[in-house]
Amino acid sequence: MKLHNYFRSSASFRVRIALALKGLPYEYLPVHLAKGEHKQPGYARVSPSLLVPTLETDGGERLGQSMAIIEYLDETHPQPPLLPADPLARARVRALAQLVACEIHPLNNLRVLKYLVHDLKVSEDAKNAWYRHWVREGLLAFERELQQLPRGTYCFGDTPTLADCCLVPQVFNGKRFGADFSGLDRTMAAFEACMQHPAFIQAQPSSCPDNEA
Amino acid sequence: MKLHNYFRSSASFRVRIALALKGLPYEYLPVHLAKGEHKQPGYARVSPSLLVPTLETDGGERLGQSMAIIEYLDETHPQPPLLPADPLARARVRALAQLVACEIHPLNNLRVLKYLVHDLKVSEDAKNAWYRHWVREGLLAFERELQQLPRGTYCFGDTPTLADCCLVPQVFNGKRFGADFSGLDRTMAAFEACMQHPAFIQAQPSSCPDNEA
Repeated sequence: MKLHNYFRSSASFRVRIALALKGLPYEYLPVHLAKGEHKQPGYARVSPSLLVPTLETDGGERLGQSMAIIEYLDETHPQPPLLPADPLARARVRALAQLVACEIHPLNNLRVLKYLVHDLKVSEDAKNAWYRHWVREGLLAFERELQQLPRGTYCFGDTPTLADCCLVPQVFNGKRFGADFSGLDRTMAAFEACMQHPAFIQAQPSSCPDNEA
Repeated sequence: MKLHNYFRSSASFRVRIALALKGLPYEYLPVHLAKGEHKQPGYARVSPSLLVPTLETDGGERLGQSMAIIEYLDETHPQPPLLPADPLARARVRALAQLVACEIHPLNNLRVLKYLVHDLKVSEDAKNAWYRHWVREGLLAFERELQQLPRGTYCFGDTPTLADCCLVPQVFNGKRFGADFSGLDRTMAAFEACMQHPAFIQAQPSSCPDNEA
């Protein structure tokens, strides 16, 4: 398999974690978002929606959207599972993942920050406040949801799931922008547990070949 | 089952479509977002993340996040299926759904529009331009993705899927704000096909008990 991705992209990071958790080897194909490489004609042929990540299967099929890719990997390479077996538990894990992927991350990605600055003439300070606001509000909601669930090592239970694949990159991004993580006991405990796990360490931005840090 | 939801909420509308497609009866419990009813303590007990929709199962379990709810319904009430059987096809449908739910809708929901106006002091015109911009950009990407797929009656194939559950509410919202739908041939053909289907008609905002239009 091949993964078109960017070291700093949160959605890319999610898929790298899933691939690492499953022990699946892949070719790393960097797409430099900050330089606009995703908008070049070559990449438009890979991803009509001009987004990273894109997974290329061994059969040459190209798949977009990180959560859809992870579910595909889980269906085609079931071990270790990234979703529980029970429908209710699956719904809880998916809801946690979507709380990050549908409520927090979309507000903070590069094209949105650019629109704030270039089109709405928002100051750098106000842009950073926007970023921290949505991370903070979103993770507080995430924490309240976790508090309703039985405590485990990770977000849901004692093995990493799709929820952890989404949470960890979001925490990384929040840290870059100085977000407030106080009072997020369950959330940060899950994050810290993940960061002891080799798959998460292997997938993190600083481990990527295109890392610039 | 019970559905805590709001007639105008796009995410609520997605779940109403899925319930209608599966012919599942449910109690409609309105939560008036514009009046802030989702922020009241009573609703916080229903949804710790203070979001609609929330599905309450017959067993009293409460589930949030519309796509997670729809997958739960699909796993527990498999007929008619809202996802194809093949993993690759499932990934394509989920990616289309997520293109709406992770790339378009989050930028345009009520709390984001409020932040633009109250915190960033953005004008009404600039707020509406923001709305239309993300709908337009997102649906253009959606159209390019559809163009890569075999043509069917709906977004993917000849039966409605999770992708249609997400597309239709987004088009409704875009129409409310006067978004530009030109050149979206496949997208709008799928939308029009959906709006001939009784389940989509039954689920639309104007059919809801709390509708104010």
